[in-house]
Amino acid sequence: MRSVYVGGIGKTAFGAFPDRGLRDMAVESIAACLADAGRTPADVEAFYLGNFDGPSFTNQNHLAPYVAGAAGIAGVPATRFEAACASGGSAFFHAWQAVASGLYETVLVCGVEKMTSQNTAKVTDILAGAGDALTESSVGATFPGIFAMVARRHMHQYGTTREQLAAVAVKNHYNASLNPQAHMKKVISLEQALGGKPVADPLTIYDCSLVSDGAAAILITAAPSPIAVAAAAQASGPVALADKTDITTFSATRAAAARAYAQAGMGPKDIDLAEVHDCFTIAELIAMEDLGFIEPGESGPWVASGATAIGGALPVNTSGGLKAKGHPIGATGVAQLCDLVIQMRGSAGARQVSRANHALAQNLGGSGATSVVTILKKV
Amino acid sequence: MRSVYVGGIGKTAFGAFPDRGLRDMAVESIAACLADAGRTPADVEAFYLGNFDGPSFTNQNHLAPYVAGAAGIAGVPATRFEAACASGGSAFFHAWQAVASGLYETVLVCGVEKMTSQNTAKVTDILAGAGDALTESSVGATFPGIFAMVARRHMHQYGTTREQLAAVAVKNHYNASLNPQAHMKKVISLEQALGGKPVADPLTIYDCSLVSDGAAAILITAAPSPIAVAAAAQASGPVALADKTDITTFSATRAAAARAYAQAGMGPKDIDLAEVHDCFTIAELIAMEDLGFIEPGESGPWVASGATAIGGALPVNTSGGLKAKGHPIGATGVAQLCDLVIQMRGSAGARQVSRANHALAQNLGGSGATSVVTILKKV
Repeated sequence: MRSVYVGGIGKTAFGAFPDRGLRDMAVESIAACLADAGRTPADVEAFYLGNFDGPSFTNQNHLAPYVAGAAGIAGVPATRFEAACASGGSAFFHAWQAVASGLYETVLVCGVEKMTSQNTAKVTDILAGAGDALTESSVGATFPGIFAMVARRHMHQYGTTREQLAAVAVKNHYNASLNPQAHMKKVISLEQALGGKPVADPLTIYDCSLVSDGAAAILITAAPSPIAVAAAAQASGPVALADKTDITTFSATRAAAARAYAQAGMGPKDIDLAEVHDCFTIAELIAMEDLGFIEPGESGPWVASGATAIGGALPVNTSGGLKAKGHPIGATGVAQLCDLVIQMRGSAGARQVSRANHALAQNLGGSGATSVVTILKKV
Repeated sequence: MRSVYVGGIGKTAFGAFPDRGLRDMAVESIAACLADAGRTPADVEAFYLGNFDGPSFTNQNHLAPYVAGAAGIAGVPATRFEAACASGGSAFFHAWQAVASGLYETVLVCGVEKMTSQNTAKVTDILAGAGDALTESSVGATFPGIFAMVARRHMHQYGTTREQLAAVAVKNHYNASLNPQAHMKKVISLEQALGGKPVADPLTIYDCSLVSDGAAAILITAAPSPIAVAAAAQASGPVALADKTDITTFSATRAAAARAYAQAGMGPKDIDLAEVHDCFTIAELIAMEDLGFIEPGESGPWVASGATAIGGALPVNTSGGLKAKGHPIGATGVAQLCDLVIQMRGSAGARQVSRANHALAQNLGGSGATSVVTILKKV
């Protein structure tokens, strides 16, 4: 495996954009990425698209050549990768594998989702497809309910509190207020987070990530640049919650993290900042434990202590996370990497962290059936 | 790039199976494949699933870990690849790349689609997603209409006749009658084919492939076996018919074929038999030309002469093709490879060809926005 580098990044703002289509957002992110990299479409040897369910959201399928063609990337392999909310991470993982193994010099990864053209009931239905239709969505267990069960169990098993969950929301809302490309820039207090409208007890509206439109792109290459991909790993686990032995941990994240740390020759203590998959606040707490940043059961007090704030020991989701930056499903895994690169370049403005040599992204699909862990490092 | 070999194959029958779900068909094909290969799920280092639109057909998304888990393949990267009707071929292409480049020793590719649970109008809508929603499906140009335009232009430009299109149907129906796993085993006459119910002029019901349920799997490995993958290539082209300069040829097939022949160190004359993407009869004629078996415009008379029949110079679609074997979208590209392997092993029974040292598969997405060409060889 040879070294792989980040050649460039590009993102659209995340938000609800009634006038924007899936393809034009994707093309905007790709154009921004190519400009950032100083490259042209002709430099791209293969195109990797992360998209969860464009066909259901937009009635357009076969999205990889559809987007690539509009971006001027013609003729090369153009493929859509689907791994639920980890679709973007999975596209990146396969792209990285291809460059690392010498198949290509330069490839482009794009992630995109256009969600807000559908009403909330339809969006909930589409998202529920990432769970188990037989034992979950068909009996009303859509994702807020699934993660509510996970949260309730974590509270029961470890004494995690509502205040600790709310602390994740408060932090991520604050971080997003410093991110010009975030969907929601509204700072909230702990009291507001605790008093949010109930969604699925114990989760309130402030524990849930946003339904967003947006796209992100990253160009990776064998040509040296200041930021390298130190590792990327994808793993799988059970789709149905009922098939897990312990619902307070995601085996796929633990497996992907173990492989990524081994590849990178690093451990959790070497990581300076992270973007993790906070589809619900409880998912950020569990990610802290599954990634080895803290022992199982200790994430609640740790996060509530401010350890993962921008000025803390390990800043997490400085972008605002899925919670407040927004969560256009297929874009998320790619956007996480873009946001890490922005920090590593020192161009994060008001949300800039002081040390960003080693950065980790974790992108989760469903309730943990897919997890992708990527580590970037300054060289 | 190191050599990659076929370790085993497995297929379900293709057909309309009201009592069978997507997952259980996929698991059956995987179990058959592992048994054929003399392997266990623990040998599989990564899982590649070709599936076009399971979410729309079955309400279940996140299908790669969903299927892998049920097949006992746990923990490893499990990813769904979507490239319209070339989803199976695309999954195989990426799997082959991964083994050829040394990332894995052994991986499993599965293709599956469950289509017949939806009514014809809904199926047509779902399939139309593989075209351009803006300029095609939204104005009534679903795939039969798109390929009717292609056929009409080929007839205009080259003098191709209705009888020549019908000859493709007659041949493939006959071949399927010899294939115990085919969806439709009904032999038809040229008169029947010509007198079929009109679908989109000049195409009749006999010019259109079937709506089917089914799954296929193939295990590929770096461990030597009698059949090697000589080449695999994927290319892309415009999604919308309106964006093509010549609709009687698919640039993606030409590009993929050129790369595959170069990789394999072969030319069209070296191929002993082929499975090609006859989603409509005209597509089989165009494939003959795009793959270089015959000059542009000459495929009609050539096929009508019997050259591509089982006893002909280049047997094509001895399985019955998408036309009569059936076309469960995501399964098709993988099933083509399984059917070639069956011939190369000499186990094709009544449809066995006399020489099967070099075999080619071509899997097309939409009206040519994706094409995957794979060449297998006996070693």
